[in-house]
Amino acid sequence: MDVLELLKKYSTEVDREIGKALDTVDPEELHDASKHLIKAGGKKIRPSLVLLSSEAVGGSVEGALKTAAAVELIHTFSLIHDDIMDQDEMRRGLPSVHTIWGEPMAILAGDIIFSLAFELVTQTHNEDIPSKRVVEALKTVVDACIKICEGQAFDMSFEGKFDVQEKEYMNMIYKKTAALIAAATKAGAILGGGSEEQVKALAEYGRLIGMAFQIQDDYLDVVSEETAIGKPVGSDIVKGKMTLMVVHALSKASAEDEEVLISILNENDEKNVEKAIKIFEKYGSINYTHDIALKNVQKAKKLLIAVEDSPSKQGLSLLADFVLQRSH
Amino acid sequence: MDVLELLKKYSTEVDREIGKALDTVDPEELHDASKHLIKAGGKKIRPSLVLLSSEAVGGSVEGALKTAAAVELIHTFSLIHDDIMDQDEMRRGLPSVHTIWGEPMAILAGDIIFSLAFELVTQTHNEDIPSKRVVEALKTVVDACIKICEGQAFDMSFEGKFDVQEKEYMNMIYKKTAALIAAATKAGAILGGGSEEQVKALAEYGRLIGMAFQIQDDYLDVVSEETAIGKPVGSDIVKGKMTLMVVHALSKASAEDEEVLISILNENDEKNVEKAIKIFEKYGSINYTHDIALKNVQKAKKLLIAVEDSPSKQGLSLLADFVLQRSH
Repeated sequence: MDVLELLKKYSTEVDREIGKALDTVDPEELHDASKHLIKAGGKKIRPSLVLLSSEAVGGSVEGALKTAAAVELIHTFSLIHDDIMDQDEMRRGLPSVHTIWGEPMAILAGDIIFSLAFELVTQTHNEDIPSKRVVEALKTVVDACIKICEGQAFDMSFEGKFDVQEKEYMNMIYKKTAALIAAATKAGAILGGGSEEQVKALAEYGRLIGMAFQIQDDYLDVVSEETAIGKPVGSDIVKGKMTLMVVHALSKASAEDEEVLISILNENDEKNVEKAIKIFEKYGSINYTHDIALKNVQKAKKLLIAVEDSPSKQGLSLLADFVLQRSH
Repeated sequence: MDVLELLKKYSTEVDREIGKALDTVDPEELHDASKHLIKAGGKKIRPSLVLLSSEAVGGSVEGALKTAAAVELIHTFSLIHDDIMDQDEMRRGLPSVHTIWGEPMAILAGDIIFSLAFELVTQTHNEDIPSKRVVEALKTVVDACIKICEGQAFDMSFEGKFDVQEKEYMNMIYKKTAALIAAATKAGAILGGGSEEQVKALAEYGRLIGMAFQIQDDYLDVVSEETAIGKPVGSDIVKGKMTLMVVHALSKASAEDEEVLISILNENDEKNVEKAIKIFEKYGSINYTHDIALKNVQKAKKLLIAVEDSPSKQGLSLLADFVLQRSH
């Protein structure tokens, strides 16, 4: 089974649900602004994880479909608002929502997408799914939303700060990225009727691949070819972004190397990217980062023992590996 | 029974729930930004309506308390984001959130307050309240959130537009203001275990007083003393804001008066406020506006026949009258 084919299979159904939800939005300008980023694509990894998790515990795609669409909408909402906060002008190869419609309309587009996400979860209707489970799924998704906001606030608070500890960094990426992925697998398992043990295992599987997802992103920024992740090598360094490599290198470096690395991160220029990478290499920070991503994926795959063998379980295993192969 | 005392009685309990929810927010800056507007006060009309509606159909305060807090949080979220969109620097006598913490942190504060609101509803736990009702309450609240976003988008789209029809204006204020008040009374009635008829009646009561609330606001801008609503007389005229009086006067006025009124609304200056008010008087727009607010309140009170006599019913009746007495 090819991962991209697997994702495509699910994304058609998810797209249909999302389309139905967004089509109701009025007035026209808000409608268009709300659809923009969804139309731009995205691999639909998160909703596929909801559906695979539901199936893996013996549930249906149908019963989890609205929640799958909701999780993708929550991801979309957070991208739109993050782009405003970070003043990012491009997203998925297109101008970001606020670049086209202005900040007020982009704030509103995010807000209504967020609202529609919750509406979708409450619309879960399937004779086999009791309301109690719907409330549990909602709790799971809401909890992730709270964490996403906190994660973004931590991320913003790290700007220009070079004494971030690994534990703080891990907490930030957990909240900003991994929490929603963990909520995807957990909500899928809940709606699918998984046992308490299965729900717990799939939630942890989601958290681990979510962490790996972000850490691999940090890693690929330095080692990949431009074409592989769609942005120039070392762009995080140019932006002075906190990454696991930076956190690791700063914790190990000599006073002199620390000073050099900080000054490169502060200069917002690509001329010393190679020099920064040399420092990462010197302290083993690149391998360290890759190792952590790899170990998280291995641990995640082991947790799948909680569910019986099935094509969906195989899909979850493939998606875990996929996290290491690419970026967003 | 005095209305302000009634509101105070409920607001203590609601404040405690809101405080508990917001205290969990991390990091500190986001925590402080999120608490700012709540600390500034507010009359807590919306959460009181949730609690009164629950009691009026025979339910408890306790079972509806989390949802009451949630409705106030949703109102707060919308104020924070609206202030960014409208570039309003003051709110409740204090600098608005974005004025103190900047737009990115204010966007996030709104987002996390919004998330916490939904978390609160999902935390409804009371042996007497089945999950099915919690899902229904959630649907009700979510539906209002979608409408709030649409209402704000319509409001923004009216800027500088002077051919807004009364029907369009009514739809805008329904979505922007009345929908959440209708959701408050409806969700309260659902959680309290009201009959289908009672839920419908209380939802409509909420919609009507919500409409009256906004229309009375339009009216008070022109007739009240500065002290009564805390803003100078005619401030909506200075801002060129679309109000029911403007919509009515423009639909009735001679070509000449129409031109004068539009040019006053466009000039953003207080020097011709009196002249605009004269035009409103000439076409009966002030009385028209007041009449509509009054009629909505009368209709709303009649709907209370759906519930048995009780102190809570009396409270709902008093709150309906209260809408005509003051502004925000």
